[in-house]
Amino acid sequence: AKIVLLPGDGIGPEIVAVAEKCLGAVADQFGHQFHLQSALIGGIAIDQTGTALPDETLEVCKAADAVLLGAVGGPKWDDPTASVRPEQGLLKIRKEMGLYANLRPIRTYESLLDASPLKNEIVRGTDILFFRELTGGIYFGNSGQREENGEELVFNEMAYRPSEIERIVRLAGEAARKRREKVTSVDKANVLEVSRLWRRVAASVMKEEFSDVEYDVVLVDAMAMHLLSRPRDFDVVVTGNLFGDILTDEASMLTGSLGLLPSASIGSDGPGLYEPIHGSAPDIAGKGIANPLATLLAVAMLLRHSLALETEATAIENAVDGVLEAGHRTADLARGGPSIGTQEMGQLVI
Amino acid sequence: AKIVLLPGDGIGPEIVAVAEKCLGAVADQFGHQFHLQSALIGGIAIDQTGTALPDETLEVCKAADAVLLGAVGGPKWDDPTASVRPEQGLLKIRKEMGLYANLRPIRTYESLLDASPLKNEIVRGTDILFFRELTGGIYFGNSGQREENGEELVFNEMAYRPSEIERIVRLAGEAARKRREKVTSVDKANVLEVSRLWRRVAASVMKEEFSDVEYDVVLVDAMAMHLLSRPRDFDVVVTGNLFGDILTDEASMLTGSLGLLPSASIGSDGPGLYEPIHGSAPDIAGKGIANPLATLLAVAMLLRHSLALETEATAIENAVDGVLEAGHRTADLARGGPSIGTQEMGQLVI
Ligand SMILES: CC(C)[C@H](C(=O)O)[C@@H](O)C(=O)O
Ligand SMILES: CC(C)[C@H](C(=O)O)[C@@H](O)C(=O)O
Repeated sequence: AKIVLLPGDGIGPEIVAVAEKCLGAVADQFGHQFHLQSALIGGIAIDQTGTALPDETLEVCKAADAVLLGAVGGPKWDDPTASVRPEQGLLKIRKEMGLYANLRPIRTYESLLDASPLKNEIVRGTDILFFRELTGGIYFGNSGQREENGEELVFNEMAYRPSEIERIVRLAGEAARKRREKVTSVDKANVLEVSRLWRRVAASVMKEEFSDVEYDVVLVDAMAMHLLSRPRDFDVVVTGNLFGDILTDEASMLTGSLGLLPSASIGSDGPGLYEPIHGSAPDIAGKGIANPLATLLAVAMLLRHSLALETEATAIENAVDGVLEAGHRTADLARGGPSIGTQEMGQLVI
Repeated sequence: AKIVLLPGDGIGPEIVAVAEKCLGAVADQFGHQFHLQSALIGGIAIDQTGTALPDETLEVCKAADAVLLGAVGGPKWDDPTASVRPEQGLLKIRKEMGLYANLRPIRTYESLLDASPLKNEIVRGTDILFFRELTGGIYFGNSGQREENGEELVFNEMAYRPSEIERIVRLAGEAARKRREKVTSVDKANVLEVSRLWRRVAASVMKEEFSDVEYDVVLVDAMAMHLLSRPRDFDVVVTGNLFGDILTDEASMLTGSLGLLPSASIGSDGPGLYEPIHGSAPDIAGKGIANPLATLLAVAMLLRHSLALETEATAIENAVDGVLEAGHRTADLARGGPSIGTQEMGQLVI
């Protein structure tokens, strides 16, 4: 299988290096051949080529079986009004590769509950799988400016078509069948027309194709509350691009272990893109203390979803569980106690 | 002073009745004359007049010094695709009265920390004042549908003009001067053009008019995390309509006491609208167990902001603090322990 590595910026290269070793170990132990190739994205791509996603990167990614990304961005490229910005690479690769579904599993680790800002009894046992729509909505709608009442007005359009809603709700429904058989769709249908379309289409997909799966709808503002008051009640959650951006980040705090959360961005066919959800953490870049576990769990998702290597994926996940249960911690999880570095944590899992 | 009461739906009438008594007590004790008048809004207005905000209601509100709202909505009118819906009354009254700023104070009560889903040491001492823009953004932008690639597409426009941003940032800056002198503006400037306008205008107002006030910017997804990991770090937070809707609801859960949170919607001049942030709670409507404290704290905000009665406002706030410290609890705060009803709680404060 061909796997493209996109180390990116900040701690990206360090954690992707660990992932590379892990892939090597999986290949050895299970008798596979992985062809690994690195390419540029983000700030480093801007510095070397003038664009956040060089054409060459896009080409090798499209030709691969899967893509593993570290992180993009950093203070050097942090001006949101600059015309070339690292996150453009991320937005463009999502769109160009047709990665319309961002999957974010949010589960708590019993041994890390004390690190959560939420009370242990609230978050214990939380296990949510988010499906965030990733190539539509306000991220990719028309934008512009015009005069109105003699004043400049700037706008972004939040737009959806039925087919965009159908395909992601379908993925959510299928995932729910393999889990606790419950889908919650989140919108703002009491105010937005586009949310009323979302609600209508989602309901019809669920009714016609997934009548065996429990289904409900929640308004986005209420969901921001429910995630804190009763996170255990949710199984699969499906929502649009902007609401998903906000809610998945909120939900990621539930676990108290941002450094353990992977995500997958997938399309109908073709390679998927896998990454840790944390950022490039410029403050600790190069220090060898970054937590590689989210990236290793992203590798597990990659093996499962893009290469259908379920046993291998589970082996990594079990290794991560084991290492945590044995009490090993990188600095971000150590809460001032003893901690180990990126390499060492990686070796333990491998 | 003329005060219009809009009891609305569900528990609205019960809690507004307590507020009415409280206003009577303030008038007696401090020697004021309040002219109180009730009007229809929400579901009850739909039932009686066919519209969620009758013209007559709007007229009496515009002619008043302040408006006190209970809550609107309930299962009877809960279809978001219906053409007449209770929340339209709320959206319309905000727009028609020019209430462009929604103020939501989020503070924790030491004696109620155990009821928060967050760990006590995280939320203890939280004291945030949100300024949510309330008459612009995606709530009031153009919406519609059109054909694209042979498919129906539905859209809502998130739009802002500089003057809309300036006036709310100015209010936030002024409020910060009376507090801890820090303003945080929240946007999504790494993706949205409209957020880049927001960021540019906010920065220039803060720099030119409030150089004495500390100022920073946070992306909306990051803010959804920071509110949980370090809520104490925020003083005044200013943001757009949709982001404010989601973030203030998220923040309201920090306190563990939704039943204690008031909000004020104000414009440049003219009457303000004051309400508890909780909803109409149809499940407990008519049972006499609803918590009236948020509504009484809304009355305090009304006295302070619209009638400049600072002493009277503080008297109510102190009475609420005192009643809570003495251990009195309505059912929502009692966590299974002994509780008192709406009337009794109201009388204790009065
Ligand atoms: C970097 C940014 C463009 C991106 C987004 O908003 O989608 C990030 O927040 C994410 O969630 O992956
Ligand atoms: C009822 C709804 C229209 C309203 C809003 O979204 O503004 C509510 O959620 C609020 O925050 O006051």
